[in-house]
Amino acid sequence: MRLYDSLISGNSYKCRLLLHQLGIPFERVDVDILKGESRTAEFLRKNPNGRTPLLEYESGEYLAESNAIMWFLSEGTPFQPESRLGRAQALQWMFFEQYSHEPNIATARFWIQHFELDEAKRRALADKTKQGHAALGVMEQHLAREPFFVEGRYGIADIALYAYTHVADEGGFDLAGYPAVRAWLERVQSQPRHIPITHA
Amino acid sequence: MRLYDSLISGNSYKCRLLLHQLGIPFERVDVDILKGESRTAEFLRKNPNGRTPLLEYESGEYLAESNAIMWFLSEGTPFQPESRLGRAQALQWMFFEQYSHEPNIATARFWIQHFELDEAKRRALADKTKQGHAALGVMEQHLAREPFFVEGRYGIADIALYAYTHVADEGGFDLAGYPAVRAWLERVQSQPRHIPITHA
Repeated sequence: MRLYDSLISGNSYKCRLLLHQLGIPFERVDVDILKGESRTAEFLRKNPNGRTPLLEYESGEYLAESNAIMWFLSEGTPFQPESRLGRAQALQWMFFEQYSHEPNIATARFWIQHFELDEAKRRALADKTKQGHAALGVMEQHLAREPFFVEGRYGIADIALYAYTHVADEGGFDLAGYPAVRAWLERVQSQPRHIPITHA
Repeated sequence: MRLYDSLISGNSYKCRLLLHQLGIPFERVDVDILKGESRTAEFLRKNPNGRTPLLEYESGEYLAESNAIMWFLSEGTPFQPESRLGRAQALQWMFFEQYSHEPNIATARFWIQHFELDEAKRRALADKTKQGHAALGVMEQHLAREPFFVEGRYGIADIALYAYTHVADEGGFDLAGYPAVRAWLERVQSQPRHIPITHA
């Protein structure tokens, strides 16, 4: 298997971390998204949506979208819930992550780390900050009662939400007001075979 | 089963359509999102993220996120692919829908139908129009080669993308340049037990 990967992308990190924890060997291809390498004609033939991560499996076919890739990799492993309801709950949190969390927290981080912000972007950032805190509040409420997101056990929903939450400070989010989220971050970091986002 | 539902929400329509096509009886609870009924204290106890659709099942538990609800309802039915790769491809398109399609096409429709647009919103709308057309282009490229999104057969990925594509004109999107998308819309509409978005 081959992973088209970017070290500045939390979405790519999700797949790299899961592959590592599952012990699946893979070839890593670095894609420099800041230099437009995910939008070249050659890359768009692999993923018409022009994004990393992208998984190429043995058959030469491609799978895009970080959470779909994690679903594929985790089927039949302890990282995916065994019950029908558990699977749906994992997907609920993964869709929450892509709709309510990532577009706010990850995008704020990306803008702050890699762009000069003009007036329009600063106004948009204020809105993303507000929406990002709303998402963190929803997580805090759940994690105040539960050790992990689904069925009390570490799995793909935790990886999906960990990817950008643990670097939320780089997007201007202070986690001081979210003690349950901070305790959960530590539980995720203490899982066997954990690797940091900087680990290629 | 009980579905907390909104007739102006394509996300809610996905679940209503699938329940109807599966022949599953359910109680429909109308939530007026324009009047803030999805953000009341009572509703937030059911879904802390304050959104419709929301499924309440027999046990009294709740499941949020339209695509997670569809996953739950379709397990073991012909609406969900049988193969591991097919399931991952269905999820790939459903995450594409929530990340690259819905925030542009559905949000443009919502703003145009329900708000007076100020200068900032008009600028944001121009960006959503551009990104929405990019998403439609990705769909067109796929549908020029395939009758449906996954494994050549109608299923939950088609429902997910149909919900807001077939009303894209209400968001200012002209589908004239997407003949394969238009032919696919007709194939979806001709499926057994199809209901329109206005059908409660």
